[in-house]
Amino acid sequence: MSEPELRPKAEKLDATDELAGLRAQFVLDDAVYLDGNSLGALPRSVPGRVEDVVRRQWGSLRIRSWDESGWWTAPERIGDRIAPLVGAAPGQIVVGDSTSVNVFKAVVGAVRLAAEKGDGRAGESGRDEILVDATTFPTDGYIAASAARLTGCTLRPVTPDEVRGALSNRTAAVLLNHVDYRTGRLHDLPSLTAAIHAAGAVAIWDLCHSAGALPVGLDEHGVDLAVGCTYKYLNGGPGSPAYLYVREDLQPRFDSPLPGWNSHADPFGMTPDYTPAPGALRGRVGTPDILSMLALEAALEVWDDVSIESVRTKSLALTDFFLECVEAYVPEGAVESVTPTAHTERGSQVALRCADAGDVMRRLIDRGVIGDFREPDVLRFGFTPLYVGFGDVERAARVLGEMF
Amino acid sequence: MSEPELRPKAEKLDATDELAGLRAQFVLDDAVYLDGNSLGALPRSVPGRVEDVVRRQWGSLRIRSWDESGWWTAPERIGDRIAPLVGAAPGQIVVGDSTSVNVFKAVVGAVRLAAEKGDGRAGESGRDEILVDATTFPTDGYIAASAARLTGCTLRPVTPDEVRGALSNRTAAVLLNHVDYRTGRLHDLPSLTAAIHAAGAVAIWDLCHSAGALPVGLDEHGVDLAVGCTYKYLNGGPGSPAYLYVREDLQPRFDSPLPGWNSHADPFGMTPDYTPAPGALRGRVGTPDILSMLALEAALEVWDDVSIESVRTKSLALTDFFLECVEAYVPEGAVESVTPTAHTERGSQVALRCADAGDVMRRLIDRGVIGDFREPDVLRFGFTPLYVGFGDVERAARVLGEMF
Repeated sequence: MSEPELRPKAEKLDATDELAGLRAQFVLDDAVYLDGNSLGALPRSVPGRVEDVVRRQWGSLRIRSWDESGWWTAPERIGDRIAPLVGAAPGQIVVGDSTSVNVFKAVVGAVRLAAEKGDGRAGESGRDEILVDATTFPTDGYIAASAARLTGCTLRPVTPDEVRGALSNRTAAVLLNHVDYRTGRLHDLPSLTAAIHAAGAVAIWDLCHSAGALPVGLDEHGVDLAVGCTYKYLNGGPGSPAYLYVREDLQPRFDSPLPGWNSHADPFGMTPDYTPAPGALRGRVGTPDILSMLALEAALEVWDDVSIESVRTKSLALTDFFLECVEAYVPEGAVESVTPTAHTERGSQVALRCADAGDVMRRLIDRGVIGDFREPDVLRFGFTPLYVGFGDVERAARVLGEMF
Repeated sequence: MSEPELRPKAEKLDATDELAGLRAQFVLDDAVYLDGNSLGALPRSVPGRVEDVVRRQWGSLRIRSWDESGWWTAPERIGDRIAPLVGAAPGQIVVGDSTSVNVFKAVVGAVRLAAEKGDGRAGESGRDEILVDATTFPTDGYIAASAARLTGCTLRPVTPDEVRGALSNRTAAVLLNHVDYRTGRLHDLPSLTAAIHAAGAVAIWDLCHSAGALPVGLDEHGVDLAVGCTYKYLNGGPGSPAYLYVREDLQPRFDSPLPGWNSHADPFGMTPDYTPAPGALRGRVGTPDILSMLALEAALEVWDDVSIESVRTKSLALTDFFLECVEAYVPEGAVESVTPTAHTERGSQVALRCADAGDVMRRLIDRGVIGDFREPDVLRFGFTPLYVGFGDVERAARVLGEMF
């Protein structure tokens, strides 16, 4: 197809898009914003809420807000708001800290779950190896290495394709990304989780690039532990707090390496001995970061009447259409998609390899098409179904074609 | 003295208070707010700044703000803004994470500094003991216990008075509070730090209840590592990010247990191998929590023309006057101060033990005198010199006297 065909096609797709009305709930401008997989756009519900939190809850009620404004219970309350988006029943997710800190809790916690006795040091159970996605967003690998060092384990980086072959009775835990941050490849969470369990190991999934973009099915697939950020497809704002999922039946044995006072069974008892709280609460650490957390809570309201399945359907239609438009508009050989074409292997982004990708992205941004550049040669375009339309997609590909 | 004498005395003290004008920079009401040692009052500079961060920086500039709005460098920039308040030269403090998480970085980092070789496990250096303040705010003890467990050390709780006797060539690190959260007792940071160093151990100070209330002198006294929160005397807002100080000469050897991508020498290189950034940056972990962090930055502007020495002078005058008024107004034997009378041993709060303290505090709050209750029997009154006046102090003590 060519422009005279693709433009009307985009219009038709937009006209029948059930989620099209959600765009009005976000602050957007003339640009095509395809960087929601880095920082989600501002939901209109957020500024007023933040103002209320600052002026009334903090400014007037002050410390009373810990109870009266629900500050104290925000981590678990907002966790329960995220839960249905990732296929989790309530009571298994707490919000707080950064993704990196939650990866640390999860990996050390997983090694201890795998050991199932003693102080969680490797060796007692013979499970002294942690497998980590070698293609992961780097922080997961760095933090997993630290967790391995502190628990006496060996860290073994493997690609997701190599996981099955690498599993053994030495494997304590496996840390994988649901969607690769660079290529946008979706990994097979159900079958990899099953393989990890068959080997007697603990499965940890990083959902940063999948939560809010596609169904995850944490409970359904028996995932043990999961972490994710909230500032990408969940639109929580810059550096908004991350979350930790601990499957319900594992919670009594979840032994956090960061047992701060917020995870104590009786935090205001101020006792010198630590007794962990029941349930997901034991994933909490210190005082919750209220301003950012309640901005996130407001941002999540956009999901009130949206199913993650409908988001996934539109996401695949958007990325399919983008690939179609790229093929039509971009000179052959100028870019190469590193994102799988199979729907079962695709997240909600398209990554195109091209020469001078950094420069190309700068010029795209100057022309109002906002994606991002990832070393060494990747143009990354994220598609947030809540606010990206098919007309945006056609325009982005058309402008990209004009770069060559 | 009695009321006819104490009221005019309060008026006279307020009239000559150099810091009295700062009160106008805070949102306050008719209540006497003596809980700024739990949550500082809202600075007037904050709401407008937060609105700008949300609407313009996030809403309009979006990802461009990581550079253009200075988001990426906020942790070290705001750390440098806190530095003079705690007697630190620039380049030694980063803001981020909760106090609990920073205690974890500091204690594990200290054990590794003490070991000075190998992988930081205890045993290699013979230094396998961590001393922790037995009267500490509980989270420090819980986290220190976790750090001890993960590094193969023994945790030994001792009172600050017992530290000197407990130090030995087995001591790796000592974690102490500058001011006790319950009694308001100020510990002798210079001499305790010197004693810890004489024993060859690493000194970690928790400044939660001293930073912003009195001079700390981190550099002057050669403190190794320090942590603190920013929502008490620094007025950063509920759960605002904490900070970590690593003395400059120790930075090249500071080996964080939370080596997230933000502490990498080249974070956007996305390399699988971890190379720590130089300087204080290696105390960073994950993506900084921008909304809360920039609210804190606005809150710190109130310090632009204020010296911590003048704050300390007023703080002591406030607590002296409060004790004087309590003696005058409260029936003998109804309350007992557990805060030291010597200025050298007093922070910026007064803690009074009394029967039914929880009920007394509820009634005080109903009468517009806001302090807090700490188990089992302590009425805690915090005095923030930036916005508490001597008239407030007289009123608080007078209302307290009416409780009995």
